[in-house]
Amino acid sequence: MKKTIALLTDFGTEDGYVGAMKGKILSMAPDTDIIDISHDITPFDTRQAAYCLMNCYSYFPEDTIFVIVIDPGVGSSRKGLVLQTANHYFIGPDNGVFSFIYGKEAVNAFEIDLSAIPWKVSSTFHGRDVFSPLAALLAKEIRIDKYIAPTEKHKTFIKPIMKVEKNVYRIPVVHIDHFGNVILNFQRTDQSELTKKHQFKMIFRNHKFDRICNTFSDVPRGKLLLLWDSSDYLQIAQNTGRAVEQLGITLDDEVELAV
Amino acid sequence: MKKTIALLTDFGTEDGYVGAMKGKILSMAPDTDIIDISHDITPFDTRQAAYCLMNCYSYFPEDTIFVIVIDPGVGSSRKGLVLQTANHYFIGPDNGVFSFIYGKEAVNAFEIDLSAIPWKVSSTFHGRDVFSPLAALLAKEIRIDKYIAPTEKHKTFIKPIMKVEKNVYRIPVVHIDHFGNVILNFQRTDQSELTKKHQFKMIFRNHKFDRICNTFSDVPRGKLLLLWDSSDYLQIAQNTGRAVEQLGITLDDEVELAV
Amino acid sequence: MKKTIALLTDFGTEDGYVGAMKGKILSMAPDTDIIDISHDITPFDTRQAAYCLMNCYSYFPEDTIFVIVIDPGVGSSRKGLVLQTANHYFIGPDNGVFSFIYGKEAVNAFEIDLSAIPWKVSSTFHGRDVFSPLAALLAKEIRIDKYIAPTEKHKTFIKPIMKVEKNVYRIPVVHIDHFGNVILNFQRTDQSELTKKHQFKMIFRNHKFDRICNTFSDVPRGKLLLLWDSSDYLQIAQNTGRAVEQLGITLDDEVELAV
Repeated sequence: MKKTIALLTDFGTEDGYVGAMKGKILSMAPDTDIIDISHDITPFDTRQAAYCLMNCYSYFPEDTIFVIVIDPGVGSSRKGLVLQTANHYFIGPDNGVFSFIYGKEAVNAFEIDLSAIPWKVSSTFHGRDVFSPLAALLAKEIRIDKYIAPTEKHKTFIKPIMKVEKNVYRIPVVHIDHFGNVILNFQRTDQSELTKKHQFKMIFRNHKFDRICNTFSDVPRGKLLLLWDSSDYLQIAQNTGRAVEQLGITLDDEVELAV
Repeated sequence: MKKTIALLTDFGTEDGYVGAMKGKILSMAPDTDIIDISHDITPFDTRQAAYCLMNCYSYFPEDTIFVIVIDPGVGSSRKGLVLQTANHYFIGPDNGVFSFIYGKEAVNAFEIDLSAIPWKVSSTFHGRDVFSPLAALLAKEIRIDKYIAPTEKHKTFIKPIMKVEKNVYRIPVVHIDHFGNVILNFQRTDQSELTKKHQFKMIFRNHKFDRICNTFSDVPRGKLLLLWDSSDYLQIAQNTGRAVEQLGITLDDEVELAV
Repeated sequence: MKKTIALLTDFGTEDGYVGAMKGKILSMAPDTDIIDISHDITPFDTRQAAYCLMNCYSYFPEDTIFVIVIDPGVGSSRKGLVLQTANHYFIGPDNGVFSFIYGKEAVNAFEIDLSAIPWKVSSTFHGRDVFSPLAALLAKEIRIDKYIAPTEKHKTFIKPIMKVEKNVYRIPVVHIDHFGNVILNFQRTDQSELTKKHQFKMIFRNHKFDRICNTFSDVPRGKLLLLWDSSDYLQIAQNTGRAVEQLGITLDDEVELAV
C-alpha cells in the first residue's frame, strides 16, 4: 500500500533544501506519494506552522507521515521527536510545532537518539539527514525503534483562555491567516461551556461583537464579523478585506469576552 | 486508470487550507495524482485565475479534474459549478474563473445542489467540503448526478474587442503575467479577421507598435515589443524587463488598434 | 519502473506556465512522478537556479530527469542542452544553470537540434514545447538521439578561488540563501589543500573569522559565524538572523582568506 509523506517547512523552495528532502525520500522509498503542505511558513515561525498543521492533518489518510521542519534550533540540544497518534505519524523538532496535536490527539511521543543513527548526519540540516530518512523508513514499514526512545515532556506554546473576573475572560489570538483573518483560541466547545444561551460580548479596543455570523457576506463589504473558521475556532474576519489591519491586532494580543 | 486532480487556489499554502483539500482528496481517492497548478493567485483575483487556467488546462490528460477555489463569495448565494467538456471536468465557484473555458470549449454546465449533499459542509470552505469531495468522487468514477443539476447561465468577465470607428478598435488588456508582460484580448484568429495583409498600428499613449516580433531578443534589451504569447494571445513585452511598468498600463486599460 | 521528473523554473505558478508543463508531461508519460523543486527562482537568476540544483540533485533517485527552465534567452540563438551523468539527466538552456554539475559530475553533453523536432515549437516557451516533451520521452525510455547532437562547449559562471599573493586568496560569494546565509566558493576539500593545520583568517571589511563552528548556536544569538553548509560549502551565517544584511555583502563580492 502506497504511503503518503506530507512536508511542512519554512525553507522556501529556491535554495534546493526541500528538493534535497524530496530526493532523499524518493531514493529510499520510491513508492511514496510526497505531498507539499507548505514551504512558505515565515522563517522560524513555529506558531504559524503549528496552526497550519492543525488545520489540515486530520483530513489526511491513515498512516500519513508528516515531516515538519521549522527548526531554528537545529544542531543545538533541542530534541527531535517522532509522535504516533491513532491515525498518523509526526516527525520534527521539539519547539512547539506540535502544540495543537497534543491538545487534540492521544500521543505516543518518542525522542530521536542521534547517537544511534548510523548514517552521516549534518549539524545544520536534520530535515534532510534525520527527519526525512526516518519518514522514509516508516513509509516502508521498517521499524525505527532503535533510533528513538519514549519521552514525556515536550514544548507547547498555546496560551489558555484566562478568567480575569466573574463572567469576564481573556481569549488569546492564536493565528493570523493569509487573508488577514484573526483566529482566537476559542472553540465551539468553549462556547457551550462559557456562554449562557450563547449570549456574550467580544471586545477588542473600540470593536465590539455580540453575534457569530454564518458567512462573510452576512455583513456589508468592508465590515468586521465573528465567524467559526473551518477548524471550528472563532475568528474575527472582514468581508472581502483584512481584519488584522483594520483591528491593528497582533499575535500577542488578547480579546475580552464578557458573558 | 489513475486520475489526475489539478488544484488552483488563492489560499497560499501557509495556513493549511490547501493541505486540508489534499488530505481530503487522498483519503477519499487514494490513487489520485494531485497536481498543484498554483496556490499563489492574488487573493480574490478571479481574472488572474481564469487566465492561469486558460494557459494550461488544454495540456492535461483526458479526464483530468480541475478544482478551482478563488471564492470570495463562499457561503453567499453564488453558485457552485461542475463543468464537463470534451476532455476534462472543472469544479469551482460561478464567479468568472471559467470565463475562458466558455469561449474555447463546448461546455455542459451543472449547478451544485448543496441541499442534496449528505455530508457536513462548512459555510466558509467549500474548497474542502464541496469541491474536493466531488472531485474525488469523479476520480473514482462514482456518479455525482444527485448532487448537481443542469444550469445555463454563468458569469464571464471577458470584455470583447470594441469597434469604435471604421478601421479602429479597442483591445482590452486581459492579464498581466509574472514577468510583467501585458496580454491583450487579441488572438491570432482576430489578426486574420481584422487586419488587411497583417498591416496595423497598436497604440497605447505614446507607445506605437506596427509589427509582431518572433521572440524577445528581436529588439534591444529594455525595448518594448509585440509578441504572440504561448497561448496565441498578443502581448506587449519588454526584452528582459517588465513591460507593465514601462507602459504604466493596468488591467482596466485598453489599447487602440488601427488597421 | 516509474520515473521521476523534477522541475525547477523561475515562472512562479500564477500564470499557468508550470501547469502547462505538468499537463504536457502527464499527457505524454502518465506514470511519471512530477516533483516540484522550485518555481520561485528570482526571474532570470541563473546563478540562484544553479545553486538550488547543486544543493539537491544528488539526492534524487537514479534516472531522475531534471527540467530546468530559467531561460531569458528563449527564442534567441542560445543552445538547449540535454546532459547525461552517471545517475541523472538534465534538460535546459545553456546559460550557466548547470555550472555546478560540470564541476561535480562526468557529463555527456548534447545540444538540442530544434530543426529536427517534428512537433510545433513556440519561440517563447521551450519549457513546455521542447524540454518537457524530451523529458517525457526519456521517462518512457524512448530514444531521443535524433533530436540531439553531441556538444563540447557550454557556459559556466563559477568564479574560481584567486591567489592574490603568498598565503592570501580571494574567495567569491557563490549564493545567498533564503535565510540570508552567504555561501562561499570554498569547499571542505579546499580547506585541506589551502590551510595548514586548518589555521586561517577569513576577512570581509571589518568582520574577521578564524574558526569554523559546528552549528548556529555555537555563537550567541545575533552573532555571525562560519559554518559548513549542508552541501559542504563554507557559509557566513548569523545565529537566528540574516548574515547578508549584517555584512552588507552581495553576490559580486569576495572574501579574503589569509592562511
